[in-house]
Amino acid sequence: MKALVYDGSNSVSLKDKPLPTISKPTDVIVKVTKTTICGADLHIRKGDVATCQPGTTLGHEGVGIIHSAGASVTRFKEGDRVLISCISSCATCEYCRRGMYSHCTSGGWILGNTIDGTQAEYVRIPHAESSLHPIPDGADDSSLVMLSDIFPTGLECGVLNGKVQPGGTVAIVGSGPIGLAAIITAQMYSPSQIIAIDMDPKRLDVARQFGATETIDSSKADAAAKVKELTEGKGADSVIEAVGIPATFDLCQSLLAPGGVLANVGVHGTKVDLHLQNLWDKNISITTRLVDTTTTPMLLKLVQSGKLQPSQLITHRASDFKLGDMEKAYDTFGEASKHGALKVVIDVD
Amino acid sequence: MKALVYDGSNSVSLKDKPLPTISKPTDVIVKVTKTTICGADLHIRKGDVATCQPGTTLGHEGVGIIHSAGASVTRFKEGDRVLISCISSCATCEYCRRGMYSHCTSGGWILGNTIDGTQAEYVRIPHAESSLHPIPDGADDSSLVMLSDIFPTGLECGVLNGKVQPGGTVAIVGSGPIGLAAIITAQMYSPSQIIAIDMDPKRLDVARQFGATETIDSSKADAAAKVKELTEGKGADSVIEAVGIPATFDLCQSLLAPGGVLANVGVHGTKVDLHLQNLWDKNISITTRLVDTTTTPMLLKLVQSGKLQPSQLITHRASDFKLGDMEKAYDTFGEASKHGALKVVIDVD
Amino acid sequence: MKALVYDGSNSVSLKDKPLPTISKPTDVIVKVTKTTICGADLHIRKGDVATCQPGTTLGHEGVGIIHSAGASVTRFKEGDRVLISCISSCATCEYCRRGMYSHCTSGGWILGNTIDGTQAEYVRIPHAESSLHPIPDGADDSSLVMLSDIFPTGLECGVLNGKVQPGGTVAIVGSGPIGLAAIITAQMYSPSQIIAIDMDPKRLDVARQFGATETIDSSKADAAAKVKELTEGKGADSVIEAVGIPATFDLCQSLLAPGGVLANVGVHGTKVDLHLQNLWDKNISITTRLVDTTTTPMLLKLVQSGKLQPSQLITHRASDFKLGDMEKAYDTFGEASKHGALKVVIDVD
Amino acid sequence: MKALVYDGSNSVSLKDKPLPTISKPTDVIVKVTKTTICGADLHIRKGDVATCQPGTTLGHEGVGIIHSAGASVTRFKEGDRVLISCISSCATCEYCRRGMYSHCTSGGWILGNTIDGTQAEYVRIPHAESSLHPIPDGADDSSLVMLSDIFPTGLECGVLNGKVQPGGTVAIVGSGPIGLAAIITAQMYSPSQIIAIDMDPKRLDVARQFGATETIDSSKADAAAKVKELTEGKGADSVIEAVGIPATFDLCQSLLAPGGVLANVGVHGTKVDLHLQNLWDKNISITTRLVDTTTTPMLLKLVQSGKLQPSQLITHRASDFKLGDMEKAYDTFGEASKHGALKVVIDVD
Repeated sequence: MKALVYDGSNSVSLKDKPLPTISKPTDVIVKVTKTTICGADLHIRKGDVATCQPGTTLGHEGVGIIHSAGASVTRFKEGDRVLISCISSCATCEYCRRGMYSHCTSGGWILGNTIDGTQAEYVRIPHAESSLHPIPDGADDSSLVMLSDIFPTGLECGVLNGKVQPGGTVAIVGSGPIGLAAIITAQMYSPSQIIAIDMDPKRLDVARQFGATETIDSSKADAAAKVKELTEGKGADSVIEAVGIPATFDLCQSLLAPGGVLANVGVHGTKVDLHLQNLWDKNISITTRLVDTTTTPMLLKLVQSGKLQPSQLITHRASDFKLGDMEKAYDTFGEASKHGALKVVIDVD
Repeated sequence: MKALVYDGSNSVSLKDKPLPTISKPTDVIVKVTKTTICGADLHIRKGDVATCQPGTTLGHEGVGIIHSAGASVTRFKEGDRVLISCISSCATCEYCRRGMYSHCTSGGWILGNTIDGTQAEYVRIPHAESSLHPIPDGADDSSLVMLSDIFPTGLECGVLNGKVQPGGTVAIVGSGPIGLAAIITAQMYSPSQIIAIDMDPKRLDVARQFGATETIDSSKADAAAKVKELTEGKGADSVIEAVGIPATFDLCQSLLAPGGVLANVGVHGTKVDLHLQNLWDKNISITTRLVDTTTTPMLLKLVQSGKLQPSQLITHRASDFKLGDMEKAYDTFGEASKHGALKVVIDVD
Repeated sequence: MKALVYDGSNSVSLKDKPLPTISKPTDVIVKVTKTTICGADLHIRKGDVATCQPGTTLGHEGVGIIHSAGASVTRFKEGDRVLISCISSCATCEYCRRGMYSHCTSGGWILGNTIDGTQAEYVRIPHAESSLHPIPDGADDSSLVMLSDIFPTGLECGVLNGKVQPGGTVAIVGSGPIGLAAIITAQMYSPSQIIAIDMDPKRLDVARQFGATETIDSSKADAAAKVKELTEGKGADSVIEAVGIPATFDLCQSLLAPGGVLANVGVHGTKVDLHLQNLWDKNISITTRLVDTTTTPMLLKLVQSGKLQPSQLITHRASDFKLGDMEKAYDTFGEASKHGALKVVIDVD
Repeated sequence: MKALVYDGSNSVSLKDKPLPTISKPTDVIVKVTKTTICGADLHIRKGDVATCQPGTTLGHEGVGIIHSAGASVTRFKEGDRVLISCISSCATCEYCRRGMYSHCTSGGWILGNTIDGTQAEYVRIPHAESSLHPIPDGADDSSLVMLSDIFPTGLECGVLNGKVQPGGTVAIVGSGPIGLAAIITAQMYSPSQIIAIDMDPKRLDVARQFGATETIDSSKADAAAKVKELTEGKGADSVIEAVGIPATFDLCQSLLAPGGVLANVGVHGTKVDLHLQNLWDKNISITTRLVDTTTTPMLLKLVQSGKLQPSQLITHRASDFKLGDMEKAYDTFGEASKHGALKVVIDVD
């Protein structure tokens, strides 16, 4: 089969690989129909993710069809359509029991990282019963690929950790795909204001289309002062960091209202400054989280009922890319801003 | 009357001052019977608290008797014994309504800071109905002085923010009075382990007497390694910072289990490093809080029912100090370690 | 001034009364501009509310203008536009501190019940600072009258008590004004299904316009069977009782999914059957609540930001009724079904 | 092997049965070392549990040693000591994911009910990885049998559902084994008062020994009046029903403080009266629950750390009963009051 493989620093390439096989009774093999590329894949390509060895098939998002199932799998059978979670969960370890699937002692983020991933014709899914979701009849596959990672990430790490609430004020720093997923899912909790902050006016336009009630171009305006002004001098109740660099984390601290939460979503490579001299008495919280995908069943229900349209995020569709074009897809997504790219859906069939 | 006044940098002295008078219908004047000294008073003496002007009477803890009450005060009358909260709360502003009395728009920590405090024969208490607590018959005044600030602080900023839970593991960095108040109140939630960390073996002995199940002298042992060892390699679920310097905040980050909470109690004067490169995917929270004293009524009930003995913290009693000896009391408390001092109760009568 | 007075069993009438005066420093006198009639007013008229003495001015909803303020009132001054909460709250008693303003030891539901209410040209509001809300510039008075009682009631007693959640299923029994307020406010939490149940097809049409995703005419269909069918055999996660009779409470029990919540909003005059033989092992909750109006500030923000349009509920407007027509208004509201009446706004000016 | 079998109405007897065998890769066979008898077993004996067919081996509590394990079981191996949960949980169905193991779609309370149970030399445990708990070295087996059902039941259905909190007041109706388990575990949350109510003075003596701060003999005193008196006229914040008949459920309703919770633990065979005419505006909750055993790992930690001594409940020990004496054990437990029996531990070895 064809698979998109990490070659070592700064390179990915399409290779022929043998079909994966069931190695434990709890595994299934999924024939992938749609997949997509995540910012984390770009990090791997750059050599930033030490756990990913050269030769690994990339990808941790996708939908597909059950090709074969291990002996103890009863929830799925050959031919079933399934959504693949980016997080593999055994469901029984201490962390899984607490809803922290990301820290599953025999799972977590392993797909396209420590084991072969979804950017291939077939993929082996460990702990299948608790790491796959049945796809309801009539659902749109491309749309559901957005539920493998980016929507649960925006919702869990951003909106839920940020305690977004009816009537509350939300500031979201970064209007890339993750920031936009947070903007969209924040609306599930009816905040009164959603303030999007970025330095790219085109992204801010998209943010506004997706539900931001205010936008701030932080390359031109003093974002902290502007957020204060918009919030009766208080700052934002929920501040979501969706970039992952010291400068944006710093900005986030200056946006917090007393009693507010700074929910970090960005992947950080270095330490940052924490201004405890200002914050020690402000009754604030700072949270971090690797997505647990505990909310995927709920998101599936909202997609089914038409309350959520994840396809909003798809700018480059299946018709643009076949698996043979994966390397080009990486380039497009890698230069997202130039191409106006948010999410690129790859049709693997 | 006599009052202990901040003179400017590095000095406090006992002065004669006129009796305070009711300036708003919601005020009362309390005749102070017992007071005590807080770490924050030492900060003021050193000149570290910019909001406190020279000439201010210090002190935000105490019990006393209602001397006179404003026209709209119905909950208290002359002669009632009351516990003074270190936080003044109007009860009606947005923050008070949310239980954040510390950020009351016309209150908060003002006693002995922006207005005259409790280290005097009489004190004016604004927003009296919501800033005083009736003292039940038979209660011990000295004991209750511990409920003005230190017990609510240990409980709210440490234990509650730290989400201490039955069966959980708690690490407390710093075994001074605040750390000890956290150790005592943590036991209200039945954690399976309470690990006290300090560099003073005498303080660690006290920590153990007050309920720590393990102690670590971080001047001799690698505290992070030791905590891991004591917690099956995970780290602590709740980590409480009760010192307030960059080194201890750093240590706290290294003690956190995945999914854990770092509850900061210490007063910090400078920024600190936050190791987001390690923490971004660990599903942790960091919290800050200025005590709100929302738990004072609950603590009063537990003292009344004998479940809590706040007098454990009193090492120097009323018989040692009269108001005339206040300056000496400051010295004793200022060199707490030398004197084995935890809390010093001053008898004002 | 003119006031609508309860005359004793089965009768209300417009009377001349002296202007109310400030009796405590925490009172204000409000000149009423808009008011409305509540189901509870009809209960009083029928003689069902023992606490309400003949001679009392009815009404606990309204907006108006501060006419005069007591000595300790600093939050409001003459001329301010205010929203009157149906619940008076001292903000400082144990219940108020816990957010249970409905059980305030010197307040609660007293307006138009134990003291004179809002269906008059002027009304005295006790505990004014914590029982009134400032009206933002540009807000529509008629709309805001809906925030005095009915919107907080639908939200607090129905939606919040019912733990309505994103992706969840909600069944609401009764599509009168309160049921509709619950249907509207439930959408703040993005459930995947809102099933409205009533026996009046016209009300069900309105329910659908206001956001119900399914409707069941329980006079024709087996509502329990139908709800099961719509929820994959489980029943509803949140069941809201918005009628107040044994039959509907019975129906609600049969609609509950395992783990669900039955949130009672209806006013009940007799005991009901609780089928514990079926429910003891179903992990369900049943809740009751008299509205606390803790959510009013949040609702005000959502109205201001345009996320909520409470005027949807107003079917008969100020232009239809002057205070002199109040008795007619009672008749219209009393025969709501005949007149297609939801809420009737009365223009007092 | 020997097994205690339900013979049909009103009778149990010791029978020879073939050893159970692994039927699914997720099963294990446990050699039982200790077991005990539950009130539910007596209900089965009486013919009250329709789901239990004659011929079924009874028992859903026990500890033992892994005898053999299915192909997909990796968490346990032959020879491991394990605690058997009374609830079997697949860990992956919708209910298990929400922590409602009692409603597991392929598990729940099946042991000794719909499949053979633990009152035998060997037992097959389905969903073994998520239905067994490893026993720490040095732990006392007899003590841990109390964690199979009765302690999690008292804690989850009574204390947690009842929202027992520091400083709160708790009333527990019924001082049988379940009521006592609630009294013991309530203390994990430091309420200020625990009021035990029963009609048997001997049971009330035991309740007091186990931590009740007050006891009421409801055959002699007006329990509702007495609870009011003990709680400043308010009633109890948490009321736990640990009997299961209409009269005690009725009593519980009369004990509730405004804002309180009535947590039902008792098994009810008939409907009861709910006095909504008194409760509709009291902001109360009523909860039901079949134990989920989600708290078992936490309870194991507290037993290990010495904070909890479940053996308190054992009145008749292993030395009194061998499996051959099981029928006698049923009689002893069936006439618990006469024999002063709480829990009877059976040594199966």
